[in-house]
Amino acid sequence: MHPIDDADYGLLAPVWAGTAVVGVTSDRSVLAAMIEVEVALAHVQAPVEIAERIETALRDSQIDVAELAVAARGGGNPVIPLLKLLRPLLDDDAARWLHRGATSQDVLDTALMLIAGGALRIVLQETDAAIAALARLVDQHRRTVMAARTLTQHATPTTFGLKAAIWLEGLVISRDRLREVAAALPAQLGGASGTLASFTELAQQTQGAPEPVDVVTAFAERLELAAPRLPWHVMRHPVTSLGDALVSLCDAFGTIATNVATLGRTEIGELAEGSGGGSSAMPHKRNPVLSTLIRSAALRAPGLAAELHRAAVTVDERPDGAWHSEWQALRELLRLAGGTAESGRALLEHLQVHPERMRANLDATAGLIVSERVMLRLAPRIGAKRVQHLIDEAATTGTPLREALTAALPDLDASELEELTDAARYTGAADDLIERSLTRALKGAE
Amino acid sequence: MHPIDDADYGLLAPVWAGTAVVGVTSDRSVLAAMIEVEVALAHVQAPVEIAERIETALRDSQIDVAELAVAARGGGNPVIPLLKLLRPLLDDDAARWLHRGATSQDVLDTALMLIAGGALRIVLQETDAAIAALARLVDQHRRTVMAARTLTQHATPTTFGLKAAIWLEGLVISRDRLREVAAALPAQLGGASGTLASFTELAQQTQGAPEPVDVVTAFAERLELAAPRLPWHVMRHPVTSLGDALVSLCDAFGTIATNVATLGRTEIGELAEGSGGGSSAMPHKRNPVLSTLIRSAALRAPGLAAELHRAAVTVDERPDGAWHSEWQALRELLRLAGGTAESGRALLEHLQVHPERMRANLDATAGLIVSERVMLRLAPRIGAKRVQHLIDEAATTGTPLREALTAALPDLDASELEELTDAARYTGAADDLIERSLTRALKGAE
Amino acid sequence: MHPIDDADYGLLAPVWAGTAVVGVTSDRSVLAAMIEVEVALAHVQAPVEIAERIETALRDSQIDVAELAVAARGGGNPVIPLLKLLRPLLDDDAARWLHRGATSQDVLDTALMLIAGGALRIVLQETDAAIAALARLVDQHRRTVMAARTLTQHATPTTFGLKAAIWLEGLVISRDRLREVAAALPAQLGGASGTLASFTELAQQTQGAPEPVDVVTAFAERLELAAPRLPWHVMRHPVTSLGDALVSLCDAFGTIATNVATLGRTEIGELAEGSGGGSSAMPHKRNPVLSTLIRSAALRAPGLAAELHRAAVTVDERPDGAWHSEWQALRELLRLAGGTAESGRALLEHLQVHPERMRANLDATAGLIVSERVMLRLAPRIGAKRVQHLIDEAATTGTPLREALTAALPDLDASELEELTDAARYTGAADDLIERSLTRALKGAE
Amino acid sequence: MHPIDDADYGLLAPVWAGTAVVGVTSDRSVLAAMIEVEVALAHVQAPVEIAERIETALRDSQIDVAELAVAARGGGNPVIPLLKLLRPLLDDDAARWLHRGATSQDVLDTALMLIAGGALRIVLQETDAAIAALARLVDQHRRTVMAARTLTQHATPTTFGLKAAIWLEGLVISRDRLREVAAALPAQLGGASGTLASFTELAQQTQGAPEPVDVVTAFAERLELAAPRLPWHVMRHPVTSLGDALVSLCDAFGTIATNVATLGRTEIGELAEGSGGGSSAMPHKRNPVLSTLIRSAALRAPGLAAELHRAAVTVDERPDGAWHSEWQALRELLRLAGGTAESGRALLEHLQVHPERMRANLDATAGLIVSERVMLRLAPRIGAKRVQHLIDEAATTGTPLREALTAALPDLDASELEELTDAARYTGAADDLIERSLTRALKGAE
Repeated sequence: MHPIDDADYGLLAPVWAGTAVVGVTSDRSVLAAMIEVEVALAHVQAPVEIAERIETALRDSQIDVAELAVAARGGGNPVIPLLKLLRPLLDDDAARWLHRGATSQDVLDTALMLIAGGALRIVLQETDAAIAALARLVDQHRRTVMAARTLTQHATPTTFGLKAAIWLEGLVISRDRLREVAAALPAQLGGASGTLASFTELAQQTQGAPEPVDVVTAFAERLELAAPRLPWHVMRHPVTSLGDALVSLCDAFGTIATNVATLGRTEIGELAEGSGGGSSAMPHKRNPVLSTLIRSAALRAPGLAAELHRAAVTVDERPDGAWHSEWQALRELLRLAGGTAESGRALLEHLQVHPERMRANLDATAGLIVSERVMLRLAPRIGAKRVQHLIDEAATTGTPLREALTAALPDLDASELEELTDAARYTGAADDLIERSLTRALKGAE
Repeated sequence: MHPIDDADYGLLAPVWAGTAVVGVTSDRSVLAAMIEVEVALAHVQAPVEIAERIETALRDSQIDVAELAVAARGGGNPVIPLLKLLRPLLDDDAARWLHRGATSQDVLDTALMLIAGGALRIVLQETDAAIAALARLVDQHRRTVMAARTLTQHATPTTFGLKAAIWLEGLVISRDRLREVAAALPAQLGGASGTLASFTELAQQTQGAPEPVDVVTAFAERLELAAPRLPWHVMRHPVTSLGDALVSLCDAFGTIATNVATLGRTEIGELAEGSGGGSSAMPHKRNPVLSTLIRSAALRAPGLAAELHRAAVTVDERPDGAWHSEWQALRELLRLAGGTAESGRALLEHLQVHPERMRANLDATAGLIVSERVMLRLAPRIGAKRVQHLIDEAATTGTPLREALTAALPDLDASELEELTDAARYTGAADDLIERSLTRALKGAE
Repeated sequence: MHPIDDADYGLLAPVWAGTAVVGVTSDRSVLAAMIEVEVALAHVQAPVEIAERIETALRDSQIDVAELAVAARGGGNPVIPLLKLLRPLLDDDAARWLHRGATSQDVLDTALMLIAGGALRIVLQETDAAIAALARLVDQHRRTVMAARTLTQHATPTTFGLKAAIWLEGLVISRDRLREVAAALPAQLGGASGTLASFTELAQQTQGAPEPVDVVTAFAERLELAAPRLPWHVMRHPVTSLGDALVSLCDAFGTIATNVATLGRTEIGELAEGSGGGSSAMPHKRNPVLSTLIRSAALRAPGLAAELHRAAVTVDERPDGAWHSEWQALRELLRLAGGTAESGRALLEHLQVHPERMRANLDATAGLIVSERVMLRLAPRIGAKRVQHLIDEAATTGTPLREALTAALPDLDASELEELTDAARYTGAADDLIERSLTRALKGAE
Repeated sequence: MHPIDDADYGLLAPVWAGTAVVGVTSDRSVLAAMIEVEVALAHVQAPVEIAERIETALRDSQIDVAELAVAARGGGNPVIPLLKLLRPLLDDDAARWLHRGATSQDVLDTALMLIAGGALRIVLQETDAAIAALARLVDQHRRTVMAARTLTQHATPTTFGLKAAIWLEGLVISRDRLREVAAALPAQLGGASGTLASFTELAQQTQGAPEPVDVVTAFAERLELAAPRLPWHVMRHPVTSLGDALVSLCDAFGTIATNVATLGRTEIGELAEGSGGGSSAMPHKRNPVLSTLIRSAALRAPGLAAELHRAAVTVDERPDGAWHSEWQALRELLRLAGGTAESGRALLEHLQVHPERMRANLDATAGLIVSERVMLRLAPRIGAKRVQHLIDEAATTGTPLREALTAALPDLDASELEELTDAARYTGAADDLIERSLTRALKGAE
């Protein structure tokens, strides 16, 4: 059976299947990126004419990516068989300049940074759009009062605006960190053992050849990547900081999705996805599919980022397995982030907010949601113990708090009673906090 | 761009690319398994003639798996769009019996157990062959003396036979556990919420229809899977015990690979892979590629198995994300195990053992490798402190132990000196332990 | 500052602080277990009189465990400094038999198996009690109808009995596996490099001394542990299978806790913990504290079990770090399981079930919870499309399903309408499944 | 048994037992930090005199931390029982200002940031010292030639200076990131649900009371923590970014330790720890104990950091378990980093480098270590195929490369032959790269 039949199309990964990130992270994209890297390497070293011959030949090459994948087993990475396929496409003169001075890891590490760059552009674009949509929700719902919940139970009132502002803060911080990482993705070029010795040898042979460290800079510039201070074959900060930033983004979207799914429970009904997913068995179901998919990614992302850290404990000038364990984990993480950001944007752009359900649910504890305020207000007057007793009684008997207060403190002023027990008037500094969050989010967008 | 261009072929996963396990775990295989499940479901419920119509139509269906993958995003799993594509292939009568009574999770869980079964057949076959090859090495090298090492330093002598016997023990225990799990892979059938209510409704409508629990049994039998005692939609032992068994196998092969890579270091040279891999930069390199790939899998497997446990903490009758996070992790784990077993078999079948290097390395500490024995033998005679002093001196000055002993104990019998300092005569119960390991390995093979 | 001031008491681990498992897994218990191991080692080798002198001296020793902990840094494990402290307590004759033939790993591995044994007794006892309490709930609530939920939305009816029966199945399978593991916890004895060479040397010196492999058996028997077939210094199945079993138990309790917390949400109110926890800010709060603690353990357990697998990929005859990374992870996992089982038992023994809230919530979708049945029943009569349309309309307009059916099918028999729309009559094979679960649970208790 | 007997002293954690970080992260330190937080909270709200009464009473309190730990189970966190113990120490007036407006999470989150701050001071101090020691080694060994190794095999020459410079780069980047995180550790203050509503209520009651957001700022300033833009109860970037930075440091030290252990193998002998650890069985052993301990930490750290990310996917205004799963993981990570940095500093300050063994090992491949250069130099002259053939022959027959070259190219100039085959003259741009690394390291130290 030809290997093409064994290909994967994301059937088991609905969170990213068919999203934009797949197109820029596919095996074919990795192959294209490796070819870009070899082309750049030729341009920064070889005579112009030869470099152009190499570029043309490589761009025109028709490598069967499925066969290349299988061949990669022979040397442990896909660069070795790729070179075997490319060399015959070149005349002898050009062949000598192909991959000159580089090692497999230079090519694959740089190619994966190119892939990461492409994926991050999508991730950042989708996240920016998600942030914009979320900022609109925050702004619209500054005064939409709802129950805050802690350990699953109603706690005190809050506003949906503030709740969403905290989600926004999470997205913005993650986005900003990811931007930093995206701007610093480095090329890799060290030669066989990271000494750049091969480039020294070449400089010795060829008059006017650039200094080894300048080859690295030119190479990075051509690929629009950052020039590394030192080769990072065995110092994997560029990979781990990328992984950490990606998982943080998944955390932030995962938090939003978890809240949407929870607040969209049949009994709660405060939020709903724009269009729910159907069921193969139950004709009435409207499932929170986007939230579910985002959550599935948030569950997986931390483990993948941890794999990158494990691969960062290296030995020698190239470790015997750690490096090889990085590639799939990194790509899957890029895809989870891409699928998450795209799903998250869609979720936020079409999120249905039901202020009336929020309002109705606020009453579920018959007024006890303001118990903190009642304690703070009345303790100085009648003592904390009596307030606690009054609240316990109301909780046990189900007596509405307002009634309980009236009974216990008959001379409590009606307007104070009203103010004291109106959940909408106990939302604290929500407005200020919302303002802060929006200000930061908008600043980030400049 | 048509999604087919975005497919993956294992380019970043050389440990499994092109191995047999890929063929039975591909997206296309998952699709085929889902169709098998729907066919079985028809056969255990519908009138024979209708079931056969369904079987024919489904077997002939030409589903584009890439499109299906993308469509899966709509409902969060691939079963929903699959049914949309299959229904039009059936007449109305047959259509009513398609997927009858089942929920998406029934189909996908059962399909993945079929996939697991297929993968495990390969994993077990390769592991059996690896065990046979390793048992031969154990048998051949019962008396091949070498240095045992602890915390990287020479410790006491051992034999390569015993070292390999302990590897063998690890493989055999893992294999046996995996066999148990393979024999118990259950079908999944519970209907929408695991109550089998849909089947009760059907039984009510159709005279002579089987009891719901009997539908489950027949369904499982038809697919050659175990019949579950209860639906396991939200009780994921079948998945976690599979994951645990797979990671244990990766641990066992990973240990072998790590030892091969270490003992094959340029300075040690006691073991070598049958054929080393080349390098893109250094023409003399012979890399331990199989060991490297196996190690890359062993690094990843524990994290993937842990994801399955995380997905096993469920809520409701189908969780909002945990289930969806299982699929990719499970498949990747099956592939890592498959690629590992195939690589491990190849590694063991062609492993080069260099007894002469083992012998030479034994002398690296100028005899100190038997220091434990010297202490045990001489402490009763001259006191532990004097023995320790003598050994410390030898270690510091580099004096060969035999010389140091002769100088310190001039009346030590020559033949005792010989026996006492001959590493080959201080290998303890290695023979007995080897025998035990081989006996167990062979018993398992019956 | 004396190290005792730096001790930990579980302040940051409320899931296990103060539970029974702490007492048997403390540093002091580990010290006691190491001493037990040294005593056993003396008894199976030394002349009776000497072994007794060793036993007395070691039992009477007053080791400062805090100082021992600090001293362990010197050699990387606590056995080395322990022996330094114990030797001076013995006369020279006895001193020679202390730790005779063993290596540090023999002592610590065996001690940790003793610790595991003690912890498992508690875990199993608490789990048995939890199973008994849960089985009572299952039995009591066979007919307590409630909404099954999938992806957070009401799906079809189920019974609380069945829901709990599936939890029970999870607990029982985990418990049974843990029992198997507990019965097979092996002693460790291999000597310096696992060859048992030291015991061979001793046998050679001492007439009538037992065969090395028999020393191992006697040693294991004395400690009531299983005798290992081979030393498992670098073949860590005994540790990983223990870890896998512990995490599975945490999964099972974690599932129960997650459901309790979710179904106890203010708006759902179907379940509640026997006595909720208070809040430092809100006087009315009754938090699901046990569920919260159990969930915190379930979140951590998979990562810890994965660490054990990572430590199982070894090198040499004792690895340089992997073994050392096991100890804390294993103990924390034992404690999480112990704290979880104790909390889980308490949770289940006092769980409050509110059938009336379950009943009320069933109506939240105005009858749509039986939409599957309506489809199955009516599709053959009026076509699936019309049924779907009817259900969509009801869902959109909020029309009660019964009304919608009456309007659409005016000639539908009243008793059939009643049956068709009564959630309590659509609970499928719940009874049979409950029976199966209870039967298995009770069988396990024999 | 009084809980004090169950305390832990680090017996199973030799990597951090007895190191400085333990003193600032112990349960007692957490208690002290929680008290500091309550004192600060009083000072920024209460009348001066009352705040001072609170400070005195709290500072003088004698809380039994072991009992507190057990009591924490009641409410799920230690703040609730702490307040119960503190309130009776205050008169009624003061009692009302204790914990005023705060929630448990405010206190514990802030206390843990204080703990983190204390731990990071130690971690950074030790890391700075490690960096200084490593920079000295880099400088001393700029010209110490040794074999670079890839996939365990000799690759090309490098210098120990460059190898160490890349380790240095890893440490410096990690240190710099940790500094950033340390400077931004935020206080937490949001009140019951993060709205600051309690402070609004207080402001309403008390004339001249500060704005809620200003309370937060004053509180943070008093504790020398950063003021948060918004409460981060459910937006856990401060925790995850701390975790990510800690694990990166462990990666960097872990890489150094792994290389030290590997290059210190008996057969390699290029590096050695200043003083090796002893063995309980083998009197001649000198184990690389510090490397082993650092490696044990590096193995565990990624999993712990991943737990923090998992806890960062929150729900509601305080999640039911995720928050509670953070505390132990965060503290263990702080300790692993502290123990690692202290061990790493000691390792680097006393590292023994053996240039003569490096030199001797360089010859292990009989000159083939410069095969890359030979290919680059001679391929243009005699063709790549002939060079490859010549190298293959030398590798197979063991012929020294110099001899093989002389035989094959009899007219090769003697001085070129010398230059071409002298490993010491093929170390590329090592000097430049070293300079870059040292420059950055020193800049960081300013």
